[in-house]
Amino acid sequence: MVSVPARRKRATIHDVAVEAGVSRGTVSRVVNDEPYVSASARAAIEAAIEKVGYVPNNAARSLVMQRSQAVGFIVHEPHSLFLEDPNIGEILLGANTALSDADYQMVCLIIDSERDTARVARYLSGGFVDGVIIVSARQHDPITRVVEKLGLPTAFVGHPPDLRDLPFVGIDNRRSARDLTERLLATGRQRVGMIAAALDRDSGADRLAGFTDALGERFDPALVASVPLYAYAAGVEGMRELLHRSPDIDGVFAASDAVAAGALEALRDAGRSVPGDVGVVGFDDSAWARRTQPPLSTVHQPASGLGAGAAELVLQQLRGEATPVGGLLLHTPIVWRASA
Amino acid sequence: MVSVPARRKRATIHDVAVEAGVSRGTVSRVVNDEPYVSASARAAIEAAIEKVGYVPNNAARSLVMQRSQAVGFIVHEPHSLFLEDPNIGEILLGANTALSDADYQMVCLIIDSERDTARVARYLSGGFVDGVIIVSARQHDPITRVVEKLGLPTAFVGHPPDLRDLPFVGIDNRRSARDLTERLLATGRQRVGMIAAALDRDSGADRLAGFTDALGERFDPALVASVPLYAYAAGVEGMRELLHRSPDIDGVFAASDAVAAGALEALRDAGRSVPGDVGVVGFDDSAWARRTQPPLSTVHQPASGLGAGAAELVLQQLRGEATPVGGLLLHTPIVWRASA
Repeated sequence: MVSVPARRKRATIHDVAVEAGVSRGTVSRVVNDEPYVSASARAAIEAAIEKVGYVPNNAARSLVMQRSQAVGFIVHEPHSLFLEDPNIGEILLGANTALSDADYQMVCLIIDSERDTARVARYLSGGFVDGVIIVSARQHDPITRVVEKLGLPTAFVGHPPDLRDLPFVGIDNRRSARDLTERLLATGRQRVGMIAAALDRDSGADRLAGFTDALGERFDPALVASVPLYAYAAGVEGMRELLHRSPDIDGVFAASDAVAAGALEALRDAGRSVPGDVGVVGFDDSAWARRTQPPLSTVHQPASGLGAGAAELVLQQLRGEATPVGGLLLHTPIVWRASA
Repeated sequence: MVSVPARRKRATIHDVAVEAGVSRGTVSRVVNDEPYVSASARAAIEAAIEKVGYVPNNAARSLVMQRSQAVGFIVHEPHSLFLEDPNIGEILLGANTALSDADYQMVCLIIDSERDTARVARYLSGGFVDGVIIVSARQHDPITRVVEKLGLPTAFVGHPPDLRDLPFVGIDNRRSARDLTERLLATGRQRVGMIAAALDRDSGADRLAGFTDALGERFDPALVASVPLYAYAAGVEGMRELLHRSPDIDGVFAASDAVAAGALEALRDAGRSVPGDVGVVGFDDSAWARRTQPPLSTVHQPASGLGAGAAELVLQQLRGEATPVGGLLLHTPIVWRASA
């Protein structure tokens, strides 16, 4: 173990001026591309910049310009879910591409704890970003209050129910869930249940509401198991509970593909065939849907489009343009495979 | 479609001063917690801050302090791989937790294109981060040159072979691959091949070298298929190629679990049983390893520890402490399941 050289000192405009033998003002005019600098002074300064390794400090510029040319992408998820969620990665990349096209730097911030919340709030307050995309906001989310207070251009992927008037892009979870459940019922299943997940979010609550809509008077609360997260392990648990409560169950709407994959495992363990004994449908059309045995019938979630759409809503605000009130809802086709 | 109010103007120290009926200097002293302000002026200023919604601009402070209290986490991956890679999420979260513990904000930056590279380089040059963690750097990576030039405290997860003297945390891919291949050979397999992946990275090249080490004189280049990415689809392709070239193959080391999962699909399609006809081993011990049928024998990759370790190397530099020369190598136990 030997030490490596300590942090090198950053070259300043002063170092350039000394090296070039000119005033700092002249260096500043060259750096900022202003006129009235002789060709020889410009050449000397450019050589000096190269030699001392000077790079303009954009944090300083952002102070003057009040612009950082960066947009925050905030993910508010427990760690375990961040790793399991099939959509976050695609939403992130969809947003990155759209922001990159507009020459904005996307900076992704993860909130996993109370302390993270406070620190991200400070960061947002600090002028480091010009706008924010928020994924997975919950009701009464302190981050939502911070962006409101700062007046930062913001867009949500999905949207907390208590903030209907902020721009968002999402899908109609309720309608998608209703359509999918109706499709499952149309295959002739008699005892159709649901593994509901994440009921503290609009997506989770809306999927359950859509399921209830489709069943109408046939709705039986004993056929609904509620699990906290859109996760594989939660799906295993939820399916076991449903099998325990209603051994005659013959159809299941799992609130996500990961939940459905877990349900398939529990059904396999219980000796039930899919789709023979029990028809199973998921939600998301993620990588899970194509890799389970059998592959899942599900709803396609336009994850990349959600990210790109949210980025566009922030960019519209940054350009001073109007954004649609009530948000954008993207289309969610049903993809029918072999699990129901 | 109706427009929502345009971006609200951010409250300034001037607005606070007007509201409180004091000078900007007095406001500044209160904001910066300096003495010599009367209790009544302080109370009036605090009320005014609350009323106009003033928040101190930390980009301005970072200019003065030369500190942003943020550390960049740079992922240099093609989009498709970012979504497939089982380690990046855990590395990211491991780093986030360690930086959060030290009260640093982690900002994740994704590089997917040449344009992203240039923009991230500008961002790093701009004083927005105090240090950088780089994942998946390649040889001659321009971002590596940028952080060197800036003298930014940096740590790599893994490390480009052309920069042996920068701090890194990694695993001994060569030794791990050799140990795993020896274990596979010890099961009695006679024709053992490899699906090598990502040979432009140290990890990919080292895993192939370890495989070669283990086989010694028995090494047969015809039994190595090379694929560009650590990805499921690449595994399907690579296994098909090996089966085509050497139908008598009875053992396969896949360069990652995702590659191994793809290999299992190709073997299933070809009517080969695993581990009966062909023994398959992977690398990573990711979620893939527990979900394939049969579950994978593999090498455990301490992904969260890699992220936390890289964060600690950056924090050491920020505190002016020495970092270990030659990097840190974490332990990688073999996890033997049912695929070989």
